[in-house]
Amino acid sequence: MNKQTIERIRKFTDDRDWHQFHSPANLAKSISIEANELLECFQWDESNFDLEHVKEELADVLVYCRNMLDVLDLDEDEIVNAKMERNEKKYPVEKAKGSAAKYDKL
Amino acid sequence: MNKQTIERIRKFTDDRDWHQFHSPANLAKSISIEANELLECFQWDESNFDLEHVKEELADVLVYCRNMLDVLDLDEDEIVNAKMERNEKKYPVEKAKGSAAKYDKL
Amino acid sequence: MNKQTIERIRKFTDDRDWHQFHSPANLAKSISIEANELLECFQWDESNFDLEHVKEELADVLVYCRNMLDVLDLDEDEIVNAKMERNEKKYPVEKAKGSAAKYDKL
Amino acid sequence: MNKQTIERIRKFTDDRDWHQFHSPANLAKSISIEANELLECFQWDESNFDLEHVKEELADVLVYCRNMLDVLDLDEDEIVNAKMERNEKKYPVEKAKGSAAKYDKL
Repeated sequence: MNKQTIERIRKFTDDRDWHQFHSPANLAKSISIEANELLECFQWDESNFDLEHVKEELADVLVYCRNMLDVLDLDEDEIVNAKMERNEKKYPVEKAKGSAAKYDKL
Repeated sequence: MNKQTIERIRKFTDDRDWHQFHSPANLAKSISIEANELLECFQWDESNFDLEHVKEELADVLVYCRNMLDVLDLDEDEIVNAKMERNEKKYPVEKAKGSAAKYDKL
Repeated sequence: MNKQTIERIRKFTDDRDWHQFHSPANLAKSISIEANELLECFQWDESNFDLEHVKEELADVLVYCRNMLDVLDLDEDEIVNAKMERNEKKYPVEKAKGSAAKYDKL
Repeated sequence: MNKQTIERIRKFTDDRDWHQFHSPANLAKSISIEANELLECFQWDESNFDLEHVKEELADVLVYCRNMLDVLDLDEDEIVNAKMERNEKKYPVEKAKGSAAKYDKL
């Protein structure tokens, strides 16, 4: 996400005085709720989906994730890289290649 | 997310030959599953949470969102700005300020 | 669910003094969290799933639903029949037969 | 749930020829989706919720759980009692009383 987009999200919240609702717990609920509106696009048919609807719901998930990064003062690249480092160790290429098994079943 | 982080996520998937599992539907399920691991950090106590755990689970959500953007060939800023434009209209400042009501109840 | 099973669930909560954690909101989070552990059984492969695992996670969803019925003093048959009445009207047989479309698209 | 309610749910599905959509995976998605519509009742305010809405969404979760029990030919009391037996061992009263800690942190 570029800076202007991030600023737009922040201004949207500021202008509406919505920081009062954006506790980390409320944002966690919101991410799950939007993730399930996204999931609903694939509820009964996984191949034929409404791409415009998918884009809207995925955007909603991303906006709430950005709100959560902000409220906890986190750097997206920092937390994602820390997690990728862990994932790379948990799923070594030679074991995980082509397998969807969870790391504790590899 | 900067380019190196995005490339790291792509290489992780490439190296493990995991594109075969990354259908949009499977990624939607994955986003919801990780969103709920994030929610679990706030299950019984919304104030005292394990920040390190929150960072990991939020990172997982973000990684699967990135996978979904990639598999659908979407531009994050584009879809988020399109959604923000809609949100700005649905929640006009003068009506929405300080209120947590859904747009159809404003 | 028969009376003994319901009583066992109640006694489990009573014995551990867990009513203090069972606010409706916390139980709603818990139902979603367990629903997603159930969903995880089908994350990458929808056909080959671990039935024993599915049984456990579905049971967890049902237990938290029972906790929620109890804390709100609701009768399961009453709320389900009220909803079925609404569903029967929203999805008239002649329109809905063989279609997975949402009621507002029928 | 009593027999008439269960039969009503089955007839609803039969009449609409919806068994074709009720794979275990689709039902798992549906349970999660409805669980999040329930969660949405508590998204921004956990104390003031719309009880009528909660009843509807909880009923939806219960109906999809019933569909899943049916499609997998499971007995609700059997799977819940098996899980309660496990829970009683994982959370011994003397350790778990008054604590919301997960079993592996007790």
